[in-house]
Amino acid sequence: MTKIVDHDERRLLIAGAALRVIKRMGMKGATVRNIAQESGLSLGALRHYFSTQDELLDFSMDLVKERAAARIYELSRLEIPIFQKALKILLELLPTDKDKLAEMEVWFAFNTHYRSSGSSYNILNDGILALIERMLRSMKESGALRPELDCELEIERLYALIDGIALHAYLDTKRVDYEQIVKLVTYHMRSICTEEAFS
Amino acid sequence: MTKIVDHDERRLLIAGAALRVIKRMGMKGATVRNIAQESGLSLGALRHYFSTQDELLDFSMDLVKERAAARIYELSRLEIPIFQKALKILLELLPTDKDKLAEMEVWFAFNTHYRSSGSSYNILNDGILALIERMLRSMKESGALRPELDCELEIERLYALIDGIALHAYLDTKRVDYEQIVKLVTYHMRSICTEEAFS
Repeated sequence: MTKIVDHDERRLLIAGAALRVIKRMGMKGATVRNIAQESGLSLGALRHYFSTQDELLDFSMDLVKERAAARIYELSRLEIPIFQKALKILLELLPTDKDKLAEMEVWFAFNTHYRSSGSSYNILNDGILALIERMLRSMKESGALRPELDCELEIERLYALIDGIALHAYLDTKRVDYEQIVKLVTYHMRSICTEEAFS
Repeated sequence: MTKIVDHDERRLLIAGAALRVIKRMGMKGATVRNIAQESGLSLGALRHYFSTQDELLDFSMDLVKERAAARIYELSRLEIPIFQKALKILLELLPTDKDKLAEMEVWFAFNTHYRSSGSSYNILNDGILALIERMLRSMKESGALRPELDCELEIERLYALIDGIALHAYLDTKRVDYEQIVKLVTYHMRSICTEEAFS
């Protein structure tokens, strides 16, 4: 039992080291040698936990996704009005601080790596579409969504809008800063909610 | 005179070859050697037209932008109602066919390359924000934009939405296909236009 926990913890430690290396040096710096050095392990020890570099990278990308999912789960349990909760969750998805900007850097690096290596890893399979779908459907059920709207298209529109804002915040951090992100997300959500939902 | 024209044409020919190489092999395949081979020139001849690899890559990325700008200029001259023209221009910005999907592949590869190499080349400086700004301001002036909307935030919202749709169409071509793109862009534009504008 102890051994299994150790094994999992060691894998997490290595993945954390891999993410720090990628943030610092980009994907091309994410060699097994650099990651071993960053995690304080020998090459041999590292290979004991991950037999290939791709296995390590997939695990690291999953770690980024899991961390985000855990943050969102915490928010989803808050006992606050639906409009405020939706805003909080959407802002959590966006690169509103340095840590989340670094996660996007990793996301971009992974994406380019996977595409050029022909990997079947699905970078978009991060649960964000499912999350937005649940959010808007529950807003519709509770009457917070304006009744004349098309819920399916609103799901797609919000999903694209969030990723578009994320892209701009990442590529042009000065123009699309925290204040601008909050303004824009709030503006959009107000435009699809009934007056009662955000009053 | 002839010499200058030849020089410019040769540079265009080389940039075209560079783009084909990137589409086929990604940025890591965009070596001077591969581009020389694709363009049918010797390494020495290629170096005569571009003294560094970065100079060649910047020129190639500019070429992608210029081609897009030329297509949009043609659309902007059409004598059709403002709502239809706006739709046509927005769809032109999106990866609605194989050629434009390949251009996005190049765009992504460039972006990752520039960021990891610390280049100051501004990948977002592609004129799309300025284009959307002009489009919405002229719609506002002509009364096509719903008067209660905030024009500044609508510009940012449409800009983020377009790039978000582009990202999804590029990463998940099956789900976000041509039909879905048209539906979504039309839906958004109808939501910000007066009834008269699209009737």
